[in-house]
Amino acid sequence: MDPKALYNLSYGVYVVTAKKEGRLNGQIANTVFQISSEPPTIAVSINKQNLTYEFIRDNGIFAVSVLAKEAPLSLIGQFGFKSGREVDKFAGISYKLTPAGLPYLTEHTLAYLEARVTSSLDVHTRTVFIGTLTEAEMLRQGEPMTYAYYHQVKRGTTPKTAPTFVPAMASTQIPTAPQYRCTICNYIYDPAKGDPEHGVAPGTTFDQLPEDWSCPICGAGKEAFEVVS
Amino acid sequence: MDPKALYNLSYGVYVVTAKKEGRLNGQIANTVFQISSEPPTIAVSINKQNLTYEFIRDNGIFAVSVLAKEAPLSLIGQFGFKSGREVDKFAGISYKLTPAGLPYLTEHTLAYLEARVTSSLDVHTRTVFIGTLTEAEMLRQGEPMTYAYYHQVKRGTTPKTAPTFVPAMASTQIPTAPQYRCTICNYIYDPAKGDPEHGVAPGTTFDQLPEDWSCPICGAGKEAFEVVS
Repeated sequence: MDPKALYNLSYGVYVVTAKKEGRLNGQIANTVFQISSEPPTIAVSINKQNLTYEFIRDNGIFAVSVLAKEAPLSLIGQFGFKSGREVDKFAGISYKLTPAGLPYLTEHTLAYLEARVTSSLDVHTRTVFIGTLTEAEMLRQGEPMTYAYYHQVKRGTTPKTAPTFVPAMASTQIPTAPQYRCTICNYIYDPAKGDPEHGVAPGTTFDQLPEDWSCPICGAGKEAFEVVS
Repeated sequence: MDPKALYNLSYGVYVVTAKKEGRLNGQIANTVFQISSEPPTIAVSINKQNLTYEFIRDNGIFAVSVLAKEAPLSLIGQFGFKSGREVDKFAGISYKLTPAGLPYLTEHTLAYLEARVTSSLDVHTRTVFIGTLTEAEMLRQGEPMTYAYYHQVKRGTTPKTAPTFVPAMASTQIPTAPQYRCTICNYIYDPAKGDPEHGVAPGTTFDQLPEDWSCPICGAGKEAFEVVS
């Protein structure tokens, strides 16, 4: 069996949000899909370790923000590599509330959906929540971010709690300068590519990065990086 | 509520196959996704009207062929717009059998998966089958076809039994010659684009198409087309 075959499945990149007793939370998910057109029904798969799981389970409603292709890695890092048990996920984030009072992102977002849970199914570490659509709005036209684009073009990584977790691998190019891996989120800094989103030109070695440079995904400092051997 | 918001969700394009008492069948699906990494678990959503649904329900095992970006519309038509109750879906198709004896496509296919059903969930017209991966192989490197690519670039259509069914709409361009819609599968012949997969150059009007030209998706003849007003 070659588990790499699974990498050929296609997904989007979403922020799934929920609330409980006035407290808001959200997380990155890639398994959001429509499951019926009449009535419109969607499903999300959420790791049972996550705070968002608890909120959806207890409150029975969730919302989905569909991220645009150009959403920055830092936004995905905020929702995908931090826990709402430790940080306020919405600090510094532009958002509005759905009719049911759940947050949806208003930047780097094409559309949002809101759904009320009608059933759920436990699958090992995860629960699939099935929900009837209660609201759906377009925010703007644009191309949605896909999971493939996030990995291949944005060079994003995946937390271990994702169903599609893949251990990060260094580029197979012969490097002219060593690559560095973030020990927090597995992001790899590749000098050949730099970090253009943060003004770092291709060709900049890790040592040449400013001292206050931080991981574009999870925000960890340079000291959290180790050389890729 | 704006249901168009749902169009921003991302999917792949797959052929889901099954067998029952030595009889093989398969259908197009776009909702195939990994749901757990340990043990590797995948899910598919299948319309309960479909023959493939009966085969999976009764035999408890399914396979998934991941279509490549360049798969022709005719292949999608064969599996997506015809019923195994009326035709042999594998007539003229190159395929091999998985270890459990299910067919997988060997052309225009990047990888295949085989899974044994461990649970299922009924959602209105559809059933979500959850299966533990029993086999997974890469066939070749390449880009998978996405649902967005199928619709936007290949100009494919969706049968009414799909969860993501969208009534086909004519191009909003001002046409220089009328467009024609296939009354069987909703495919729209657009003279501005022609049918390059079958040697029909852009600029060819519907009347200029050879008499033996047939719908690139479902194979219907020219007589099955009506002008788009």
